[in-house]
Parts: sequence; structure tokens; C-alpha cells
Amino acid sequence: MEHKIGLIGCGTVGQGLLQILHDKKVFLRDTFGFEARVVAICDKIKGTLILPDGLDIPTVLALLGAGKALADYPGATPAQVESRDPLDMIERTDADIIAELTYTDIKTGEPATSYIKKALRLGKNVVTSNKGPAALHYREIQDLARQNGLQFRIEGTVMSGTPVFHLAECGLAGNNIREIKGILNGTTNFILSKMETEGMDYGPALDLAQKLGYAEADPTADVEGFDALAKVVILSNVLLGGSLKTADVPCRGISAITKADVETAKAKGFRYKLIGHAKRENGAVTATVAPQKLPLSDPLAGVMGAQNALSLETDLMGKVTIQGAGAGKLETGFAILSDILAIHRR
Amino acid sequence: MEHKIGLIGCGTVGQGLLQILHDKKVFLRDTFGFEARVVAICDKIKGTLILPDGLDIPTVLALLGAGKALADYPGATPAQVESRDPLDMIERTDADIIAELTYTDIKTGEPATSYIKKALRLGKNVVTSNKGPAALHYREIQDLARQNGLQFRIEGTVMSGTPVFHLAECGLAGNNIREIKGILNGTTNFILSKMETEGMDYGPALDLAQKLGYAEADPTADVEGFDALAKVVILSNVLLGGSLKTADVPCRGISAITKADVETAKAKGFRYKLIGHAKRENGAVTATVAPQKLPLSDPLAGVMGAQNALSLETDLMGKVTIQGAGAGKLETGFAILSDILAIHRR
Repeated sequence: MEHKIGLIGCGTVGQGLLQILHDKKVFLRDTFGFEARVVAICDKIKGTLILPDGLDIPTVLALLGAGKALADYPGATPAQVESRDPLDMIERTDADIIAELTYTDIKTGEPATSYIKKALRLGKNVVTSNKGPAALHYREIQDLARQNGLQFRIEGTVMSGTPVFHLAECGLAGNNIREIKGILNGTTNFILSKMETEGMDYGPALDLAQKLGYAEADPTADVEGFDALAKVVILSNVLLGGSLKTADVPCRGISAITKADVETAKAKGFRYKLIGHAKRENGAVTATVAPQKLPLSDPLAGVMGAQNALSLETDLMGKVTIQGAGAGKLETGFAILSDILAIHRR
Repeated sequence: MEHKIGLIGCGTVGQGLLQILHDKKVFLRDTFGFEARVVAICDKIKGTLILPDGLDIPTVLALLGAGKALADYPGATPAQVESRDPLDMIERTDADIIAELTYTDIKTGEPATSYIKKALRLGKNVVTSNKGPAALHYREIQDLARQNGLQFRIEGTVMSGTPVFHLAECGLAGNNIREIKGILNGTTNFILSKMETEGMDYGPALDLAQKLGYAEADPTADVEGFDALAKVVILSNVLLGGSLKTADVPCRGISAITKADVETAKAKGFRYKLIGHAKRENGAVTATVAPQKLPLSDPLAGVMGAQNALSLETDLMGKVTIQGAGAGKLETGFAILSDILAIHRR
């Protein structure tokens, strides 16, 4: 079966997805009977390209790699590359799956939420790696999707392609998940790991994370825990059935943790980790983000460097922990593909 | 949708499955639209019960819990509890799913393989926790299932309900898995953990494992690696596309590991684990089972006690590791349920 895919946003994640769709074309067709035709891309900076017959992925990746715009796509008519708002693109494309890959605005969830709702209203499934709509409006968007017999999928919002929602939905289906505990931000885990294993102080460890590209120039969202906070809210609402808002969740980052704290903990057999934690008790869901001293026997204690991990506490299986990459071009591109494949399977 | 289920074997796993089907009846119906009617049980020791209208699970569990036979099921006619061979039961029941839960014979895979084939030939899906058929005849049985438009599912054969095949099939679908490395036997991991954390020698650690019920009176299958071997063969053939037989896999257990070995490794920052390892290279799949000294940075190094874990090396996601229970009544019962739910989803 062939799916027509439209991309809103074509930065790192979008290009990762395109790369995978191209490299794995034959494998995906032969293994799953899955074929994809990318019929539209709409990016704030790179412009618009709407080609109902499907665009040539290597051509697009070469253009973008050379710093050119989609308007330079060879042979495209002016109407096909006319600059458009994503809302306009959604209306014009016959894509049956929209991949919403724009940047997260955790305060409003916009403009992504408007894009997603419009796509669902027009009968298109939506997959996204954008934490804003998932953290702020999950229930509402999911209801809209269901009413229209469509899917709204968000694997890429938490641990890139390391499966969290697929795990709950598929491998652990039938369990009652009552608690989750995770290392949900690779940057802070990298910094804490360096502070412990190489005896670095917080400042130099952060500098190193920035130098290596793990942390942004303004590292606030990572080190103050806001990135982990958005993810905890998503996990609470999707896996535990909560209806938390970000303001409901006490949040403390790692910027006040010193080398001495790390060393004192280590001497007592503990290891500092920035932990996103949520649980359901007596019907109420509560969550926190804070540095915690874990005993080395905790499956999360051994997770070092920029890796992510999540422990799910379940009624039948006890604790199940999954560990893997939490970011990356191919990794998040794969998260989008895994959601597209889930739509294909239905 | 209602499924009619027949059980061959009703020991720990079968009773775990029945318990879950009963306790989760409403949840499974409301969440997945799944309903189960258990229409037949055939157990070598406990006898046979064939009730096309469905049996009452609490009554059966109470009978078995009191050490009675299925023949004592209240109100059953002599024909319904007449002693039968499982092959005969398969022929007589109108179950659409057979749960094959008898004990593993790793040399022949029998009689389980014959039961499974007969069920598939008669149009019934099969789920099993029996390592024999999966390790020895997977490809052949899977082909038979496909030819008949049926499913043959084996989640319970490797890490009880900790999802391995569901993970590959669902959350990681689209990846090329090229290598797997796992702690696949809880007994040996318990023994090695005790040797390291409590400085015990091999003998006393094994005694403790036996006392706590982790190890059998004859611990050979665990400590010499044969249990892990069967699981590595299954993983190699299912996840890596190999066609290994148990004789192809060099296998060494932990009985020759001394306290001194463990301590020397620890002093150098390593930890002994019994590792099942398989990889595909240049189209050929090879595997081993052997004690390995892992650096503490390996995600498997932190897996202590009777837990199991598996790392999958993939092309898109790098290494993904899942950790959880590897045995248990409810845990393996859940493995069977998770496969039944997968059949339900199709």
C-alpha cells in the first residue's frame, strides 16, 4: 500500500526521515508492503514544494544540503514552489499522512497545534515529534483524531525513536502502568556523567556538552529541566491517563548540583540523575522533575552519557526498563517512520 | 471480538494465563474489545476438560489449587472430562487459538511440535512458551502458519513477558537488527550477582538459588548455559534471520567461574555475566553462549539478580536495551496473553 506523505518542517528530523525513506525503500516495500510517496514539503526557511506525483528525495536532500531552497527544485512550476503557509499547504496537498516536524513552543503549542487540527479535520493522519501539542493538548487532539477515524501519533516526542508508546501499546498491552521513572534528557545525563566519571565541575561539563553539540548556546531548557518536564507531562497524560499541565509539575534542574554533591553521593553508593517521575495513586496522577540520588541497583543508575531510559512499573510485569538514544537525526527520523508504519499496519 | 482458547498444559504458565484472563476480563474488553472464552484444557497430570460454552476460570483454578483433577469440574459430563491426548483434544475443540504450554524438550521439540503443527493444519492460531519447537523448528512452523493464514507466536520463549519479539516487530520495525547480546537466564545472573555483591563462592550461591526456587534440583540446564543456548538460537533465527541449530552454537556455562575470577574482574572495573550473543556478518549468522567480563559502561552490566535483559544493535537506532523479568507465573502468563492480543489486533 502506498502512503502519500506531507512534511511540515524539513530541518534535521525531516531530512532524517527523507533519508530513511529513500535508503530503506526496497526493504520497507518487501518487508511490510509499505510504499511512501512524499508529495509536499512546507518549511518556514526552505520554502514550499507540492508535487502530487511525488518528489525525488535525493534531489531534495542535495538541494537542502547545498543550502538552497525548495524553489530551486528542477522542473517545478512556479505554482508548485509558491511560498505557502503550512495551513494552506495542508489544504492543497492530497497527502494522507502529515508529519508535523516544526520546533516546540512549550508555552502555547502553536502554531503546530493548529496545523495538526487542520490536518485531522481534513482527513489526514498526523505524526509529530513536536512536544508542544503533545504536552499541552494531547487529549483534545486525540479525541479529534478518533472522531475522524484517524491516528495522531507522537513516538518522537519523548526518546526519539527508542520506543516508549509502541512499547506500552504493543509489547506491554494488557498491563496497568502505574508509575514511570525516566532519564529523559540526554544533555543533563551527559553533564552528570562527566561530573562523576571525570571529576569535572558543573561549568566545564556544560561547556563540553556545548562544544560537542549536546547542549544549545542557551542551555536553560535542558539544564533547568524544562525539556524533561514537557516529556513527563506527555508520559503522564498518555501512559497514566493523567490530565496534567506543565504548571502542575514541580521542576528542578541540575544547575545547582556541584562536584562535591556528586562525589558525596558516589562515596555512599549513589549516583545523581535528573529523573522525570510520575505515578497514579488513588486515581490521581502526580509528577515531578528533579535530580535524584539513585542506588546503583536501580536500572536507571547505569545509564551513562547522552542516553535516555524509561522504567515502567506495571501490575503484571513489575518493572520494565528500556534504554536507547534520546535524540539524533536518524533516530528521530525513525521515530516518525515508526509511527507511519503503525498507521500502515492498521 | 471473542476468541475461543484451548490450553495444552495447565501448570504454572497456564494457571497464570487463566488468572490474568479472569482478573482482567473487564479491562481487556473495555480497552481492546477483547473477550476470551476458554473452551478446552488438556494436561498430562490434571486431565482434560472440553466445554464449548466456556469454562468458569475461578472454578478451575480452585480445583487445581486444591490438587484435584479437571475431572472433578462440577456438572461436567463424562465425555467432557474423558482423558484425552492433546492431539485428540485439538481435533475436538472449536478453539481458534491454542496455547501450547507444555515442558521444553530441547533435543526433539516433541511432543509440542506435533501439537502445534496439528493445530495450525486445523486452522487454529498457536502461541507457545515452549522453547523446543521455537529453537528447533521455527522456520518450518512459521511457514506452515503463513500458508494457512494463521499466526505462530513465541514471546514467552525468551524473557517471559518482557517484550523481545513485540519490540522488534512493533517499536523497532524498519530497523535492520545485526547483533543481539543478552542476559537470558535469571538463575545464573542471580548466582553471579551474589558472588560479586556478597562475596559468595559458586557452590553456596547455587545452593541459595536452589533454596529460593530460582534453580532446579538439577541445575545443569541453567548453569551450563543450555537454557540460554536455546534462547540464543531462537533469537538468532527469528530476529537475525539465521538458521542455526543448537549444535552450531559454542556453549559454556558459569560452573567453572570462581569467586577469585569475579573479584579479579571487579578490581579491573569489569563484571562477569553469562552472555548469549549472536550477530550477522556478511550474510552469516553466528552465536555463542559464554561468561563474559563486561565493562560497567555496558547496559547489561547493571542488570543484577534474577532479571533478564537484551541489547539489540540496529542500523537506525544504534543499541536499544530492554530489561525486565525473565520468568514467573504472571510474567509468562502475560507473555501468552500478549501474543493472544497480537492475534486479536490483526
